[in-house]
Amino acid sequence: MAEEKENIQFELTKELTEQVEQLIENQKDKELRKLLNDFHYADIAEILDEVNLEQATYVIKLLDSDTTSDILMELDEDIREKVLENLSTKEIAEEIEELDTDDAADIIAELPEERQQEVINKITDQDHKAEITELLAYDEDTAGGLMAKELVKVYETWTVAGCMRRIRGQAKDVKRVHSIYVVDKRDKLIGRLSLKDLITAKSEQKIAEIANPNVDFVFVDEHAEDVAKVMQKYDLEAIPVVNQHHILLGRVTIDDIVDVMKEVAEKDYQLAAGISRDVEADDSILKLTIARLPWLLIGMFGGLGAASIIEHFNQSMGDFIVLLSFVPLIQATAGNVGVQSSAIVVQGLANDSIDGNILKRLFKEFILGLVNGLAIACIGLLITHFIFGTPYVVSITIAIALIAVIVMAALIGTFIPIFLDKRGIDPAVATGPFITTSNDVFGILLYFVIAKAILGF
Amino acid sequence: MAEEKENIQFELTKELTEQVEQLIENQKDKELRKLLNDFHYADIAEILDEVNLEQATYVIKLLDSDTTSDILMELDEDIREKVLENLSTKEIAEEIEELDTDDAADIIAELPEERQQEVINKITDQDHKAEITELLAYDEDTAGGLMAKELVKVYETWTVAGCMRRIRGQAKDVKRVHSIYVVDKRDKLIGRLSLKDLITAKSEQKIAEIANPNVDFVFVDEHAEDVAKVMQKYDLEAIPVVNQHHILLGRVTIDDIVDVMKEVAEKDYQLAAGISRDVEADDSILKLTIARLPWLLIGMFGGLGAASIIEHFNQSMGDFIVLLSFVPLIQATAGNVGVQSSAIVVQGLANDSIDGNILKRLFKEFILGLVNGLAIACIGLLITHFIFGTPYVVSITIAIALIAVIVMAALIGTFIPIFLDKRGIDPAVATGPFITTSNDVFGILLYFVIAKAILGF
Repeated sequence: MAEEKENIQFELTKELTEQVEQLIENQKDKELRKLLNDFHYADIAEILDEVNLEQATYVIKLLDSDTTSDILMELDEDIREKVLENLSTKEIAEEIEELDTDDAADIIAELPEERQQEVINKITDQDHKAEITELLAYDEDTAGGLMAKELVKVYETWTVAGCMRRIRGQAKDVKRVHSIYVVDKRDKLIGRLSLKDLITAKSEQKIAEIANPNVDFVFVDEHAEDVAKVMQKYDLEAIPVVNQHHILLGRVTIDDIVDVMKEVAEKDYQLAAGISRDVEADDSILKLTIARLPWLLIGMFGGLGAASIIEHFNQSMGDFIVLLSFVPLIQATAGNVGVQSSAIVVQGLANDSIDGNILKRLFKEFILGLVNGLAIACIGLLITHFIFGTPYVVSITIAIALIAVIVMAALIGTFIPIFLDKRGIDPAVATGPFITTSNDVFGILLYFVIAKAILGF
Repeated sequence: MAEEKENIQFELTKELTEQVEQLIENQKDKELRKLLNDFHYADIAEILDEVNLEQATYVIKLLDSDTTSDILMELDEDIREKVLENLSTKEIAEEIEELDTDDAADIIAELPEERQQEVINKITDQDHKAEITELLAYDEDTAGGLMAKELVKVYETWTVAGCMRRIRGQAKDVKRVHSIYVVDKRDKLIGRLSLKDLITAKSEQKIAEIANPNVDFVFVDEHAEDVAKVMQKYDLEAIPVVNQHHILLGRVTIDDIVDVMKEVAEKDYQLAAGISRDVEADDSILKLTIARLPWLLIGMFGGLGAASIIEHFNQSMGDFIVLLSFVPLIQATAGNVGVQSSAIVVQGLANDSIDGNILKRLFKEFILGLVNGLAIACIGLLITHFIFGTPYVVSITIAIALIAVIVMAALIGTFIPIFLDKRGIDPAVATGPFITTSNDVFGILLYFVIAKAILGF
């Protein structure tokens, strides 16, 4: 018992991977099955992510489809795609039969189009087939794309005792019951019950009497991120999905929402870092290059823009050539302030914690930029003049430029995400290299304009 | 019915806030209670986040403590703190009585130390008081700090029928049952059951017969982020927490984990953007400045470092002064590449999807940098020579420097987070301004060293 319980501490060791690889090579099916049966399917998926493709396929074909279907769902997407290529449409259909409808539809949607219909045709359970076909019709970024058809549904006219009897049947197909949904005779959602309500009620009571009519729900075409927000705000672990006539279609569970939240957080983080597609450290160099090069190009054009600004002013600068040494200072400051401002706004927009008043927010950023700018400018003035020995008038020029550049960068960093959000564009694209590049160019331009005005070259 | 169900679409309007404010000002308690009773507590919290402090306190004192305790939990932290200052310790204790132990402990922990014991002393339910006191002893970033004492526990020797009877009692205090935990007579966790298992079992069966011995659990001192990883990996909605002797202490539910995940994602995002504390767009200018200024200072010192490098080379540069125009290009490229590389590594480390082999990863980044560098360098060469009219040898120098800087930035961006992670330091601190600043300085240094070697000034 004690040993068995330790498997929560599962750690993928090199020894274990090698042991599995050897058992596969020597086709020791019985021992392999015995070894793997001790592990959770999520742990087996971790092992299969490490071995080669033939070996992974071997294990998937060896184990029972009720385990392997779960393993497939946990595999890294790229590896799953390749393993599925090695399986016949009949074998895939067998895996599909074991999966909940939402996972089944996700797997089928990942297949090449020409195989999709073939696999669907080979599903023997007709209800399952019809439900999966229905789910495939929804956009994957909506409540319909997230929901499963598995749920426990009772009619308002049933008694508690009758309900318990029928639930015993329905619940077999439903891994976690969460709520029991109460519908009228047209399948319109009218309330909910918890299993707890049911077991604490008297058996002759009518469902209508004990149902809670305050049932949260989402419409089938609601965006996945909005479903996540609703479930998080109201602390829900499952939410029913209805069509426009309030007919109960399915339910979304918290584990799907956790995945949505994780994807959104990773996407925003990557956009802020200048990576334009959903990539991982282990992806191919080609995929990583495609994700990274576009932002580097944007940065390069910004750098070249800055170069022409410098060339322009350089011609008349004369004695004040020392100004060029402080271009990196101006650029770094503009970039950092821009990223800070935009990140806070993007996060606020994502959390709906920012109200729409653009002017109020810009004014606040203006004050904030002024405070930060004064602090940085004072320190900069002291260091450039007393340590670098820069002439007093040049140090003052740099200090004034720093204040102006910080205020400008803060305003641009705040304005652009809010503007994009109002236009219905994801404000997260305006973070990272986008903001730094525009701020680099504007910052350097502002620096020289101010220097020219003060120093009069 | 139909209207009531629309409240999922709750949107906080100016009109609603004003209506609430007026009812408070005119002390129309009855109407106010009637209006607010129609809303979910999370919606009421949103309204109270908008009105002023006296008004929020007024509402909290007006409504029943079973609603207001939930509202308090949903309030913005700063506002909650201030509302609690306006409540007597007795009033706070009344709110605490209504909360689950985990939320109760969180609220008490937020109070000033001198009030904490006073509030605890005023809790009348002795069991609740003892449980909260126990929870307050755990570090808030551990399983113990996340868990609640509310759970449904049955002894292995009970029958299904006896179990159902007793659960009816226990379940009243437990909002969501999730799993039923099976313990031996020493309260040692030995298995679990779902409510579904229970209602589908025969009433004379012993719990020991139907319990599932494969119960996942975490130790009470496990770090919150690790608890989140385990629950996510194994798709758990609740996990029992045990001490080192496997005695059942409490359970952590998925809603707490969702909050942990969100906090981690926000913290990493903010670190990448150069914001050093958990701040929101609506925080005070002082708080925002404290969060932002340190990184700006780091950036400033980097900029000043770059300035001394430029001054140093400037003295001998002579005809090649044109090189200075391309400093922003070098700097922007170094910064962008560094942020891209570090972000991917930090995300991989957070997901445990990076294996520990530093050399392999650095080699991959080297190749990736070379590929990206060649692409950027070729385009840069063409543009600087043919459009800017830069002399051929200078354009080639810039191109070579770009390749070297991109490779260097990719290696630094990869190495530093992995190095910090191995040392037990959160690698996320090494993203954003930290990486851009060090890459700015090293990139500019490398640029001039290469230029000097090629052009021989």
